[in-house]
Amino acid sequence: MILAVAPNPALDITYHLDQLRVGEVNRVASVSERAGGKGLNVARVLHAAGVPVRALAPVGGATGARIRSLLDAGGVPHTLVPVVAETRRTVVAAGTGLWEPGPELTSSEWSAFRAAFGAELPAAAVVTLSGSLPPGWPIDAYAQLIALCHAERRPVILDASGSALEAAIGSGPTVLKPNAAELADLIGRPVTSVSSAVAAARAAIDRGAREVIVSLGPLGLVACADGSDWHACPPEIVAPNPTGAGDALVAALAAGWLVGLDRTELLAQAVAWSAAAAAHPVAGEIDAAIADQVRPLVRVVSARPEPDLDRTGSR
Amino acid sequence: MILAVAPNPALDITYHLDQLRVGEVNRVASVSERAGGKGLNVARVLHAAGVPVRALAPVGGATGARIRSLLDAGGVPHTLVPVVAETRRTVVAAGTGLWEPGPELTSSEWSAFRAAFGAELPAAAVVTLSGSLPPGWPIDAYAQLIALCHAERRPVILDASGSALEAAIGSGPTVLKPNAAELADLIGRPVTSVSSAVAAARAAIDRGAREVIVSLGPLGLVACADGSDWHACPPEIVAPNPTGAGDALVAALAAGWLVGLDRTELLAQAVAWSAAAAAHPVAGEIDAAIADQVRPLVRVVSARPEPDLDRTGSR
Repeated sequence: MILAVAPNPALDITYHLDQLRVGEVNRVASVSERAGGKGLNVARVLHAAGVPVRALAPVGGATGARIRSLLDAGGVPHTLVPVVAETRRTVVAAGTGLWEPGPELTSSEWSAFRAAFGAELPAAAVVTLSGSLPPGWPIDAYAQLIALCHAERRPVILDASGSALEAAIGSGPTVLKPNAAELADLIGRPVTSVSSAVAAARAAIDRGAREVIVSLGPLGLVACADGSDWHACPPEIVAPNPTGAGDALVAALAAGWLVGLDRTELLAQAVAWSAAAAAHPVAGEIDAAIADQVRPLVRVVSARPEPDLDRTGSR
Repeated sequence: MILAVAPNPALDITYHLDQLRVGEVNRVASVSERAGGKGLNVARVLHAAGVPVRALAPVGGATGARIRSLLDAGGVPHTLVPVVAETRRTVVAAGTGLWEPGPELTSSEWSAFRAAFGAELPAAAVVTLSGSLPPGWPIDAYAQLIALCHAERRPVILDASGSALEAAIGSGPTVLKPNAAELADLIGRPVTSVSSAVAAARAAIDRGAREVIVSLGPLGLVACADGSDWHACPPEIVAPNPTGAGDALVAALAAGWLVGLDRTELLAQAVAWSAAAAAHPVAGEIDAAIADQVRPLVRVVSARPEPDLDRTGSR
């Protein structure tokens, strides 16, 4: 199975209403809730695709209990580590988001979480580490988990940003999956084209990542590994809802790894799932029909001959 | 004790942020939560004032569990009837409100709730019935509870609106506490002045209420009972946060009744607590210092000599 790690999960609440009137009381027509945060999105995409997965997350309070019951209702296998603080919520109302700050967790809760990770690891064929770290946990938390993966010889995909990424890259994640902005932030150089993405990805490999797959939004992704570089380009620009597309990409990589796809197939699946997530109104879900349509149309080429993002993207 | 009944409670969530940017992700600086809905506001005001109270509400799911833990943390005595559906939330972010629809409850849950009410009633000196009814419960739910109060000879204060009020008024609540808009809706005539409030309140008495106390916002209240009418006028216009002011008014009436205040004292307390709630940024809480300041300054007069709201209100 794939172990999908979500250190900072959230209860994602969507309020359905036509328009948000500022400064007034808005009566919400209906409410959707899901177990969210990047790592739980990965788990839900994998589960929906029929891939064996287990979600690992700390949860606390009534919000955490709600996440548990939503995962149960969806049939997503999980290992939830109880913590004292209330798990955060995100609220989206007619396109406007309200992100609660993550709760402060304790160092003993981190020890319990790491122990739970260690207990699940032997059964995991692939590990995904996604999203921010909760305040109160060591900034090298991902580095510690990656070290455990190396000790058990498990491939580990890291999708993090900022200081959590800075502190983790040196421990050598098998795959690092930043987007262009996150990679630019890490390397300190703009990432605005396929060639600049390749250069930045190589710099990230120099800092410890074994392989780097950069998501470039509607232009697909760039992959760098073993001295080679690829650009996987979607057949057309898809719907403009990028929320969760990166999580679907991580899920596709993990799922492809699990069944031994070759690199071209793997990257095509990653682009297809990402596009299918962007076409779906709900993060953490993909439109399987779109994924099946897109996959055979993805062009996977060496990144070298097409050094400029603009030319690559025009069709 | 006062039995404060909340058939449709809510978890009130306040997001603290300077400004709500529509169509963007807003990172919330901090979050406040409280056990809300009108009936639970009444209970919290009474408990904070040191008045013996018990809250009675149906609660369900993770949101209901959170309401329970918030009441526990505040030390508010409660009888919470478990229901299947998730209790609703309200979200307020920088002055913009998002009101979830109330959950659909079942008729057997209504039977359990009514039974719990009957069990608490003998120990109650005064009963307050506040707010909307959950979908799925009989529209005459308040009428049924009022009949039980009459059978036990317990005074009951009703603060309801719309069809729930229509269905309840004939059963003879001891005190009906509408605001001007709710009373106008019930009677079918505008309520825009002290004299029109008196006329409408008398019409409500003709329809079954024993006594009517109309809240008129910054202009205080009008009370009609036993063929007499009063206007209780606050000393000055207070802060413009009316949320919860009506609940504080109900709490003041119940508390005053409990200790046998005479009518002038009772109405002065009602105006003072209401003003003190309007001056407080959080619904269901009052600023006790403001209440103490306002109370001796409230003017309670016969409503007759001052037939026009504008003249009465000007000072």
